[in-house]
Amino acid sequence: VSPVRRGRKTPPGGASLEVEFSPLTVNRLSLYLRALLHLREQGVARISSQDLAHRYRLNAALMRKDLAQFGEFGIRGVGYEVAPLAERIAGLLGLERAHALVICGVGNLGSALARYWGFNHGSFRVVAAVDTDPQKVGKRLGSFTVGHARDLKRLVRESGADIGVLAVPESAAAENFAELVAAGVRAVINFAPLRLEATAHVRVKNVDLRISLEEVAFFLSR
Amino acid sequence: VSPVRRGRKTPPGGASLEVEFSPLTVNRLSLYLRALLHLREQGVARISSQDLAHRYRLNAALMRKDLAQFGEFGIRGVGYEVAPLAERIAGLLGLERAHALVICGVGNLGSALARYWGFNHGSFRVVAAVDTDPQKVGKRLGSFTVGHARDLKRLVRESGADIGVLAVPESAAAENFAELVAAGVRAVINFAPLRLEATAHVRVKNVDLRISLEEVAFFLSR
Repeated sequence: VSPVRRGRKTPPGGASLEVEFSPLTVNRLSLYLRALLHLREQGVARISSQDLAHRYRLNAALMRKDLAQFGEFGIRGVGYEVAPLAERIAGLLGLERAHALVICGVGNLGSALARYWGFNHGSFRVVAAVDTDPQKVGKRLGSFTVGHARDLKRLVRESGADIGVLAVPESAAAENFAELVAAGVRAVINFAPLRLEATAHVRVKNVDLRISLEEVAFFLSR
Repeated sequence: VSPVRRGRKTPPGGASLEVEFSPLTVNRLSLYLRALLHLREQGVARISSQDLAHRYRLNAALMRKDLAQFGEFGIRGVGYEVAPLAERIAGLLGLERAHALVICGVGNLGSALARYWGFNHGSFRVVAAVDTDPQKVGKRLGSFTVGHARDLKRLVRESGADIGVLAVPESAAAENFAELVAAGVRAVINFAPLRLEATAHVRVKNVDLRISLEEVAFFLSR
């Protein structure tokens, strides 16, 4: 499990209390949000936690516990109000403000991610990409032109990118990470097969697709 | 945390005991393996668990506990033998045999994954891909030609694919998953933003890239 950060919780008494949220809890918030948005699309206004959990194969007790960390959401005997709860969770996830992504490395994976629906939807937009390959620099990709990696700092400043996406080979990952940090992004999603550690100012999410393959291989070999 | 499967452990007494391995433990085995392969490349023959943990920013106590679940690896006062331990972990991860991947959906992400180094390296190879789009069917992709989704069963049989990769839109995910299950793959890596559940015979790994984005957005908003 990755490192956790401190958040704030206001207990019933009203006093503020420091608590830590694990990435796993945060990932579950995303799942609750999707379920609620799906229900809202279907015109469902209210749902009990049991029904919500059952329909979306969630753990009802864990969901109640997760949500209770962030405040009082459910109404006893009535359940959750779908639209307000969805909005509240979107707010918790920081989705009420726009996030701009810059991609380092536009090989197969990087260029796919630049056009990936999930990275260009709701609060997220890929706004810039860089590479060092002269064949790639200057090419059109989505709504922008691929820049040279040496201009990363300026591109981040001009585009307002706050999240970097590392899609470079393992050998270039550490150097490109340092450049992203120096350019001022506040978080990095790292697809290179090299585990990077967060710095004092930059959050890191390592997404290692190869590890997912090895995980299924492990269970296949049982 | 995803569901766990049963494995076997032989305790000191020699009797066999059923234990469960969590995906998180299995993911850590991948990290240990990478560290050991890196050391082997550098010609390191033996290393203490403290030194190994320190160099690769691993948790030494957790690593000893993880490895102890699978047998006796370290030698007291000497540490780990790098090459034999790497081989043993590769064996535990099922990497001593070849795994063939079939990709469903060759949009941006699917076609990038088909050519992705991490999916075409060591024991893993992408051997087939399908789509329903006539513009894509028949196109060359890596070492094969994209087939039509209606021929999935035959393609899986002919190519010997044991792992399916779902890279279709959310709306097509459930149907394509059912087709992969019917075609006889034993595991599915699902990139669609719809959580799929394992069946009695098919392991599922949900890899939701959007959730990773939302996770960093959460921590950025603190």
